[in-house]
Amino acid sequence: MLKHIIESQQFTVPFIIELFESAKRMEKIFHRGGTQDYSNKIMASLFYEPSTRTRFSFETAMYRLGGKVISTENAKEFSSAISGESIEDTIKVLNNFVDIVVIRHNEIGGAKRAAEVSTIPIINAGDGKGGQHPTQALTDLYTIYREIKTIDGLNIALVGDLAHGRTIRSLAYLLSKFERVKIFFVAPDPLQIHQDICDHLEENDTWYCKENNLLKIINQVDVVYQTRIDKEKLNVSDAEFNQLMQAFFIDRNVLNQLKQNAIVMHPLPRLNEISAEVDSDPRAAYFRQAQNGIFIRMALLAYLMDKY
Amino acid sequence: MLKHIIESQQFTVPFIIELFESAKRMEKIFHRGGTQDYSNKIMASLFYEPSTRTRFSFETAMYRLGGKVISTENAKEFSSAISGESIEDTIKVLNNFVDIVVIRHNEIGGAKRAAEVSTIPIINAGDGKGGQHPTQALTDLYTIYREIKTIDGLNIALVGDLAHGRTIRSLAYLLSKFERVKIFFVAPDPLQIHQDICDHLEENDTWYCKENNLLKIINQVDVVYQTRIDKEKLNVSDAEFNQLMQAFFIDRNVLNQLKQNAIVMHPLPRLNEISAEVDSDPRAAYFRQAQNGIFIRMALLAYLMDKY
Amino acid sequence: MLKHIIESQQFTVPFIIELFESAKRMEKIFHRGGTQDYSNKIMASLFYEPSTRTRFSFETAMYRLGGKVISTENAKEFSSAISGESIEDTIKVLNNFVDIVVIRHNEIGGAKRAAEVSTIPIINAGDGKGGQHPTQALTDLYTIYREIKTIDGLNIALVGDLAHGRTIRSLAYLLSKFERVKIFFVAPDPLQIHQDICDHLEENDTWYCKENNLLKIINQVDVVYQTRIDKEKLNVSDAEFNQLMQAFFIDRNVLNQLKQNAIVMHPLPRLNEISAEVDSDPRAAYFRQAQNGIFIRMALLAYLMDKY
Repeated sequence: MLKHIIESQQFTVPFIIELFESAKRMEKIFHRGGTQDYSNKIMASLFYEPSTRTRFSFETAMYRLGGKVISTENAKEFSSAISGESIEDTIKVLNNFVDIVVIRHNEIGGAKRAAEVSTIPIINAGDGKGGQHPTQALTDLYTIYREIKTIDGLNIALVGDLAHGRTIRSLAYLLSKFERVKIFFVAPDPLQIHQDICDHLEENDTWYCKENNLLKIINQVDVVYQTRIDKEKLNVSDAEFNQLMQAFFIDRNVLNQLKQNAIVMHPLPRLNEISAEVDSDPRAAYFRQAQNGIFIRMALLAYLMDKY
Repeated sequence: MLKHIIESQQFTVPFIIELFESAKRMEKIFHRGGTQDYSNKIMASLFYEPSTRTRFSFETAMYRLGGKVISTENAKEFSSAISGESIEDTIKVLNNFVDIVVIRHNEIGGAKRAAEVSTIPIINAGDGKGGQHPTQALTDLYTIYREIKTIDGLNIALVGDLAHGRTIRSLAYLLSKFERVKIFFVAPDPLQIHQDICDHLEENDTWYCKENNLLKIINQVDVVYQTRIDKEKLNVSDAEFNQLMQAFFIDRNVLNQLKQNAIVMHPLPRLNEISAEVDSDPRAAYFRQAQNGIFIRMALLAYLMDKY
Repeated sequence: MLKHIIESQQFTVPFIIELFESAKRMEKIFHRGGTQDYSNKIMASLFYEPSTRTRFSFETAMYRLGGKVISTENAKEFSSAISGESIEDTIKVLNNFVDIVVIRHNEIGGAKRAAEVSTIPIINAGDGKGGQHPTQALTDLYTIYREIKTIDGLNIALVGDLAHGRTIRSLAYLLSKFERVKIFFVAPDPLQIHQDICDHLEENDTWYCKENNLLKIINQVDVVYQTRIDKEKLNVSDAEFNQLMQAFFIDRNVLNQLKQNAIVMHPLPRLNEISAEVDSDPRAAYFRQAQNGIFIRMALLAYLMDKY
């Protein structure tokens, strides 16, 4: 039984399966226009740095449950940066105001520090550049489950900047909990997945390999999870970058080599690593993935508010 | 039947009249404290640049209808400026979150691009400096209709910076759809109305003239629509500017020459082009005009949410 | 009968007692999850400078009453700074939008100017650095009343930067309205309470003394109201500052000398003038004080909305 949602390591397979069943029910509730069941609950959106998409997703989820929201996009002012207040004091005050806190912190561990002093549930909406974003990881996993009906036995390509990608790392971690999953890490060498994740997969007997060209494995996979590569992360010219991206980007041509019942995912926002012409293909799952974030967050909010 | 509200050119006279009747009903609902009819609807306020008054007007309208609002004042961060995301992707994501989007974009055509990919209604709350602000134009026209009971046959002075005024241009366009309207464009020469509007009026047989002194025509008009003149737009000294403004500004003295049943309008905010001593005169309609914006936006939101 | 809440001088003892009884009822309503009694009311949070804690407190209060909120953290843009609009015009527009306005203004007297033109209630949520913050003063007084059941006859230490502290000055003012209160002003000499407050206390026969060491009087008082001392306000080195603070800061050691039924208050945010080890002592009332701000604001909002 979880009180706070801080990091992907917390989630057991039974918790995940229960949450996914709840998310499916939330999907029905959403399409009926929501519920008023939580009309006397207030959520605080405490964003120390702006992340409008994530904030909108949580706030939409809370409103579809009937709840209310107090919100700040610049909580740095509320707390440490200007007033010098500790995050612990900020949380202790909010404990006496609201029923649940969604926190986006600019430092790794910020959400954990918040949870340690909190009497009400805390949800981590991303902490620091190399930190966790557990509701995104659950959204990603739910999207695979929702689209393909299973996770066991799938071949999954994780593509792009695997060295810095927070979502990729969390997803790889969660996938290792399932049976017979094969993971293809597809990235330019300088941006390949770090050894700690490889070690973790080996400990959990999860098959993986590293590739540097999506085209070599595209026809073997059930899921292509694309992420953005920032040119700044590679020490190359524009021309070299465009040349390099040929091995990673997805257009209709690449799509032609993908299995008919496979899916293409992306955490968004994208630049041009997926061509807009892919959007109309039924296998393009990334906008449905964004919506699944609403259902997962509705399920998490309801779970935590029911218990506390 | 309109799905999106993007530009004044969309509106036919029958649509306008139907909307005005709905706005009158909304006025009654507003004064009863609003309705809960749209309590399961969510509006996104997507403001790429801040415009708190317009945002407050739309959000008040949505709340008076019983709906909910997710809101950002700095959507540039959400989208293109930082993340590089296209407005099209942003809208496709929001399509799966909410029921209607109000967008203020910093580029001309931003709202139109949004509408082209949207499955839910989009309302343009102003796009770019020379772009459109159609709900303001409807508010202005409704104010005339509400105050004088007709638009046909009125003499209307449009005063101030007619070269740059977005609202003035849209209003002139809408007025040309009505019968026997006479328009007096009153501005310093460098800020007179552009030829494209004059051409349009001639094509529609709408009478107009250009003046450079409000006092010359003040006693002939039913409506004085005042707008702000920024000194920066004229290459003059402070003293010259104050001298020039004598021909355009409105105080109690000017008011004495205005017909008893005429009205003074202003889109607000004002500087000193209307003296505060005018506010208490019953002909000063500008604060009622601001409130009419609520009724028009309630009517538009309800119209679009009912249909989609 | 108050229409606007602008400054502490407005409050009579009967008003204060009536408000405190209402706040106690609000406390019960809060713990039941709030009411929907004000579901057709809208509050505008008009913050010309950010103060997220105060804004969250008011918005939570309004939501617990069932109402709705339109909100801006950067009203300077809405009004004078960019558009040049007067606060009077801004308020006249909002009068036609919402039912009540909470205003935080960057200039002393801002809230008063707002109230002078407003047909709906205005609440001052802080105006300028040396201005008023009347709802904080009521919250502070209510906390004493709620914790100790009386105000008459108490010995109260006001500690810290008494020269600049807005809350301290307002609280001293309110305390002078009660019987047999003794006030100990404890501060470094350069930051002692100003003569105007001393004069006021003398006129009202309220006993006070000035001290420069908390330890000298700690065992005599029923309330220690601690505030922050900013090093920048004193022309001293870091080492000198730390030395100086020995006479003012509160840790478990200091707490041992405090009466068993006394309380420690702080308007928050704190730096290190109260050690975190004090938090777990039942006499540490500052987080309860923050929550009392919700109850007082619920009571004030309900009082004003019921009357207008």
